[in-house]
Amino acid sequence: MSLYPAPFERLVEQLSKLPGVGSKSAQRMAFYFLRLSDQEAEAFASAITEAKRRVRRCEKCQNLTDQEVCPICASPKRDKRVICVVSEPRDVIALERSREYNGLYHVLHGVISPLRHMGPEDITARELLARLDGTVEEVIMATNPDTEGEATAMYLSRLIKPLGIKVTRIAYGIPVGSNLEFADDATLFRALEGRREI
Amino acid sequence: MSLYPAPFERLVEQLSKLPGVGSKSAQRMAFYFLRLSDQEAEAFASAITEAKRRVRRCEKCQNLTDQEVCPICASPKRDKRVICVVSEPRDVIALERSREYNGLYHVLHGVISPLRHMGPEDITARELLARLDGTVEEVIMATNPDTEGEATAMYLSRLIKPLGIKVTRIAYGIPVGSNLEFADDATLFRALEGRREI
Repeated sequence: MSLYPAPFERLVEQLSKLPGVGSKSAQRMAFYFLRLSDQEAEAFASAITEAKRRVRRCEKCQNLTDQEVCPICASPKRDKRVICVVSEPRDVIALERSREYNGLYHVLHGVISPLRHMGPEDITARELLARLDGTVEEVIMATNPDTEGEATAMYLSRLIKPLGIKVTRIAYGIPVGSNLEFADDATLFRALEGRREI
Repeated sequence: MSLYPAPFERLVEQLSKLPGVGSKSAQRMAFYFLRLSDQEAEAFASAITEAKRRVRRCEKCQNLTDQEVCPICASPKRDKRVICVVSEPRDVIALERSREYNGLYHVLHGVISPLRHMGPEDITARELLARLDGTVEEVIMATNPDTEGEATAMYLSRLIKPLGIKVTRIAYGIPVGSNLEFADDATLFRALEGRREI
């Protein structure tokens, strides 16, 4: 028998479904909600339903947006000849922060991962291929440099290359500002392999 | 400039107000919401508003309830001559779990803490005093054994004792199943001081 009132328990149950939230922190969060004013709680609840209702995928690049086409795809300033393929929306944010890239993106919303039962049909591979009309000259694979990201990049490149489009992969190497001493062997190997004349 | 759509950012902002949630985990949680079905998101949002709307304080013991009077206060089986004073609703749960106690409770919803600007008027001290009619014979102070819990117990006992009501404090000592070796000095001192003949 639970000793908290049922509506409280139901809130705890919902909160403990959140990623990284156990039953103790779910309880702490539920108490937080009880301390909010009615308006504050209402604002919170509607932030959830509004995000659900209004956030969708850009019909071109599949990134999150509240428009039909996201600001990047809609911008006349972006170079439409290059598409950078990333796994998650947060990767777009990271790349935009670098201010280095001026092309378009494509968000896969996942990677191919047999272990997690994610096949090519579970990522936006089909949508990517559909974008490769005459305009696109280069596709940059910017999935993570781990086994799954690597396999996903390989899989997609094998589909794209036959279309006569250049496919590239982001460079591996020592992170800027880090220390050679702490780099792992695989990274060092890749850093040496990818060396360039200065 | 934020690159996530505004309704998504508003959700992240709300989530990062939760206790123990930083901006990174708030983002992860927001993505979790986007993956929910509309019904699931709706259920989550309404768990918040329902808990706010329906959970209130028992008009007697101030514990959380969705009734006017909580099940413990309403039960004819509980001993109405004893009130156990605790700081938080979770302490009631803990004490009920021990199945040792059959009296009533009083939830202070905090402790007196000058550092956190919590005075006697910020806890339910007034409501406790109002309950001390002729029926109550003993008040057990079960606030936490830390400085603030101690000070709160002392403060309340000074108000209650003059009414001719017995005031007791839960025992200090070595936790059952723990190891003497790891007990701190203060606990060991209290355990010795509170020794009983066997």
